[in-house]
Amino acid sequence: MAKAESNVSDGLTLDLVRDSLIRQEDTIVFSLIERAKFPLNSPTYDPSYTSIPGSCGSLVEFIVKETEAIQAKAGRYENPEEHPFFPDNLPPSLVPHHKYPKVLHPAAMFVNINKMIWDMYFNKLLPLFVTPGDDGNYASTAARDLECLQALSRRIHYGKLVAEVKFRDERKDYEPAIRAQDRDTLIGLLTFANVEEAVKKRVAKKAVTFGRDVQLGDDGNKGKYKLDPAIVSRLYGDWVIPLTKEVEVEYLLHRLD
Amino acid sequence: MAKAESNVSDGLTLDLVRDSLIRQEDTIVFSLIERAKFPLNSPTYDPSYTSIPGSCGSLVEFIVKETEAIQAKAGRYENPEEHPFFPDNLPPSLVPHHKYPKVLHPAAMFVNINKMIWDMYFNKLLPLFVTPGDDGNYASTAARDLECLQALSRRIHYGKLVAEVKFRDERKDYEPAIRAQDRDTLIGLLTFANVEEAVKKRVAKKAVTFGRDVQLGDDGNKGKYKLDPAIVSRLYGDWVIPLTKEVEVEYLLHRLD
Repeated sequence: MAKAESNVSDGLTLDLVRDSLIRQEDTIVFSLIERAKFPLNSPTYDPSYTSIPGSCGSLVEFIVKETEAIQAKAGRYENPEEHPFFPDNLPPSLVPHHKYPKVLHPAAMFVNINKMIWDMYFNKLLPLFVTPGDDGNYASTAARDLECLQALSRRIHYGKLVAEVKFRDERKDYEPAIRAQDRDTLIGLLTFANVEEAVKKRVAKKAVTFGRDVQLGDDGNKGKYKLDPAIVSRLYGDWVIPLTKEVEVEYLLHRLD
Repeated sequence: MAKAESNVSDGLTLDLVRDSLIRQEDTIVFSLIERAKFPLNSPTYDPSYTSIPGSCGSLVEFIVKETEAIQAKAGRYENPEEHPFFPDNLPPSLVPHHKYPKVLHPAAMFVNINKMIWDMYFNKLLPLFVTPGDDGNYASTAARDLECLQALSRRIHYGKLVAEVKFRDERKDYEPAIRAQDRDTLIGLLTFANVEEAVKKRVAKKAVTFGRDVQLGDDGNKGKYKLDPAIVSRLYGDWVIPLTKEVEVEYLLHRLD
């Protein structure tokens, strides 16, 4: 506690970081439940399905790229916690500059692993939690995918703040590993198996709680939920936690630059 | 049950309509909880805050209008269950036509009360459930508003399907009132006070369930939720249910055209 409170100068504390990570779990579970409303809708991901002038990929690429461009104009990516999936040729913000608190080392702006997140989401996670089928709602499906991607990206890149607060609290442990550019030692310093197990259990419980059919009287789920709790637990164990460590390590390797 | 099953020719049944309405409650509660993550962020709604070239309104108008345009190109509004907030000058769909089942009378396409929904959301609902304050995340805030608006619009315009299924089941009761263009009688036929009370209770329970802080062990809410259950109940009682009836009546008045 005393350690966390030592970082009050710019408002970054371990408690605030932890609260944000926990709150972001809800957002991720909500967004996956909402995506699971729709079947797979494979034309959304098929570059040969449609040819929109000025776009050469799939419908989901079109939706994500164009929506990011609008949100960029509205200033979304001025916030260092937000990371675009298509950073090339992103239009500049057209709104007055907002002073977000500067808590990260400037090297943070070069860490963006959204390509890995995109690949994980579409090639590994999505097939696990949607039903097969096609209901024609490709635009809405792609909009739901964007929500999932943004929630996952925000959570995983929050690793920068996690790394910063841990670095400040245990500077003498981290500095030698950073100077030696020693990834394995950094991964070791960042790993707390018991915390990871608790997170996996908690997100599964969130899938149970948020994915139930709420009814007046007793809820009548009988173990059937809108989103399989085991998949959410696996999402965290296999991908969110390891990808967050990837962000943490990439950030820390340049923390003393 | 026998009545509902009489409509199987085009797949429209009272059970399916009811299931969809109940599932959409979850979407609405999720979207409000996610909007409540952010404070009011009033510059989002202030036309004098920013001047984006080609846009003359507030930031939220820019985000909604431009995002709708992208989703229109991707075919969102080909689905008769979707209604844009800015239908003027909406670009056409650029994707192959999907055959949505034709269950509604053609007059349905002229019923769009999104102006009333916009006014209700920003002027009545929003101030009730967000905290005062400004964290600078206006683009993300506007994106969350869009999610709320789309969820509410979809739910309220689902009244067209509700009206159609009720009309088919009780045609002899509805026809005279439609021929007489008698709004009051139609409202009477569409009103079931006990069902409305149950809906209001259920959505409040959803706010409790989805808005709690889920923890390992007992959840430690002590009556504090991310979204006030009483406000969700009021949203339905004061606005969603009456606006749905507005859609139902507008649709039915032209059902015999």
